[in-house]
Amino acid sequence: MIVLFTDFGLEGPYLGQVRAVLHRQAPGVPVVDLFADAPAFDAMASAYLLAAYAAAFPAGAVFLCVVDPGVGSARAPIAVPAAGRWYVGPDNGLLAIAARRAAETQAWQITWRPERLSASFHGRDLFAPVAARLARGETPAGEACPLAALAGHDWPDDLARVVYIDRFGNVMTGLRAGTLDAETALVAGGRRLARARTFSDVAPGDAFWYENANGLAEIAVNQGQAAALLGLAVGDPIDIEGDVRR
Amino acid sequence: MIVLFTDFGLEGPYLGQVRAVLHRQAPGVPVVDLFADAPAFDAMASAYLLAAYAAAFPAGAVFLCVVDPGVGSARAPIAVPAAGRWYVGPDNGLLAIAARRAAETQAWQITWRPERLSASFHGRDLFAPVAARLARGETPAGEACPLAALAGHDWPDDLARVVYIDRFGNVMTGLRAGTLDAETALVAGGRRLARARTFSDVAPGDAFWYENANGLAEIAVNQGQAAALLGLAVGDPIDIEGDVRR
Amino acid sequence: MIVLFTDFGLEGPYLGQVRAVLHRQAPGVPVVDLFADAPAFDAMASAYLLAAYAAAFPAGAVFLCVVDPGVGSARAPIAVPAAGRWYVGPDNGLLAIAARRAAETQAWQITWRPERLSASFHGRDLFAPVAARLARGETPAGEACPLAALAGHDWPDDLARVVYIDRFGNVMTGLRAGTLDAETALVAGGRRLARARTFSDVAPGDAFWYENANGLAEIAVNQGQAAALLGLAVGDPIDIEGDVRR
Repeated sequence: MIVLFTDFGLEGPYLGQVRAVLHRQAPGVPVVDLFADAPAFDAMASAYLLAAYAAAFPAGAVFLCVVDPGVGSARAPIAVPAAGRWYVGPDNGLLAIAARRAAETQAWQITWRPERLSASFHGRDLFAPVAARLARGETPAGEACPLAALAGHDWPDDLARVVYIDRFGNVMTGLRAGTLDAETALVAGGRRLARARTFSDVAPGDAFWYENANGLAEIAVNQGQAAALLGLAVGDPIDIEGDVRR
Repeated sequence: MIVLFTDFGLEGPYLGQVRAVLHRQAPGVPVVDLFADAPAFDAMASAYLLAAYAAAFPAGAVFLCVVDPGVGSARAPIAVPAAGRWYVGPDNGLLAIAARRAAETQAWQITWRPERLSASFHGRDLFAPVAARLARGETPAGEACPLAALAGHDWPDDLARVVYIDRFGNVMTGLRAGTLDAETALVAGGRRLARARTFSDVAPGDAFWYENANGLAEIAVNQGQAAALLGLAVGDPIDIEGDVRR
Repeated sequence: MIVLFTDFGLEGPYLGQVRAVLHRQAPGVPVVDLFADAPAFDAMASAYLLAAYAAAFPAGAVFLCVVDPGVGSARAPIAVPAAGRWYVGPDNGLLAIAARRAAETQAWQITWRPERLSASFHGRDLFAPVAARLARGETPAGEACPLAALAGHDWPDDLARVVYIDRFGNVMTGLRAGTLDAETALVAGGRRLARARTFSDVAPGDAFWYENANGLAEIAVNQGQAAALLGLAVGDPIDIEGDVRR
């Protein structure tokens, strides 16, 4: 299975062109869009989102990851093996958290290049062919390099920021709920938010946080739009009540 | 074929996670998104939309239906066999109209549960595995129950409300056009709307209603946005001129 | 491979219904969405977009093209063989530029009709079955006609207008960058725009034009929204500095 994690958006020709390359170069391999609307140009927020959502996929999955504001510049393309999966994308930190959580220590700088490489669409021209080769069991030409030498190696294990807002206005943070205890409150948008199990456990209109279905601490309002109510946007800081780290 | 009917939206990870489960648990079965933007949290409007749009699918299709404001509460998961198809979803009325139109009298309360069931994402954790099993020809553990005992059993055969507005501003009602005669006018947004065959049969800018390509009475404006022009939103009532029921 | 080029939008049931027909009538053939948000009702802008984006697909691809404001009127359905690919759609100019660039001279007026043809959804009822037949290697009943007799035969080779705006605010024109030399400036929204290689070659906030990954002249702003900054919408004229044609 090839899993797409991009900020291309669903609109326009971008995803379709990537899919067309994958269908031709890895025929018969299912392709699934995980996120097409990862935080645009924000490799850091995206890195925590990717790590949380990739964890449930089986070994053998190849993640094609493109949040790449530096396309056309000198940043290298990399591939990281992690817990039996492959992650392919730019060396800008996007893959760093997923790799670290898998306790990997090594990545590959991809030296393979396609015959024709546009300046602006490496997702189609470079990363998709690399992902297709990995899905076929081939390893594109590259050079081993330690994770510690890559962008993102100094980022925190959890990110106390908003990393995604879904269409219901639910606010995902870069914090794993498992690192917070049951009594921990989050503070966001000037409001103290207690933990609940799920939506139906609080009254309509109440704001709370809970462990979402992928293990992230998520701020929500039962039958309401948390992002609008609390005035939150991607990148905004979240306070952990009583957390000495902040 | 597995057909998705949800209010998840196209954005975010939700559809992709469901598709990933289906690819793994029912490999090779095509998966089609029918609606990803069914009326959010509105099982009643969704029920009439589903019944109208599912009718054209062949026997053997499995409909995975998730419009489920009560996720995490006590409402049961059900599966309904109807006209050779299966419908899987929550017992909140969503499947009631499709089942009734197929003259079915019996449903299954699903007692099967996955090893790991999140509190907030039964679409991925419970309904998708059930749909995959049905698509493979297996029947998950459950108990027969009469349709008459399920939510929605007392809903009307047709719904005189707006059930969907498409991106062109066309306004779908929950009324089957076949239940209305050629001279019947609809009244919505303070305007009397006569019936036409299709867009090109009225002048640009004219509002009318017609039988859409799936049999629903739909309000439209040739080269215009009916919803904006008439001030209509999902859930708004539609009057049938001269209808004694209203 | 069947490639979808439509203005249906991603929302709603339209794409899914077309995909369901294709899965049933051409089982196993991959289906890729190239554009689901082609310029709505605008066959001319769409024709230049289609020609630019279809060029990279391999021989054998079948393009199912529906931008069809005249659905239900007398305009004919056509199929055009071009450079080993098939294009299927309405005779309203949509296919004209792709056909001309392939140096084709002949098209087919499709006379085949399905048993059931709705007045408003020929994409599902007529064009999709025709595309499925072509993908299976069959040729639906039709009559040869010269391209010169079809809509769009008198349209220019390149279109000095905005043909698409992507979700990042990048502004695609209907001009092939290869027809413009390196010193050519474009004028749009009252601003003179010089050519650059790509985003990372200009300062953040700077507007420029460049050859996009599919050969079109595209107006962009590094880390900004060109369409908003320059006040541009689909259909707006673009001036080519010093161009005697204008």
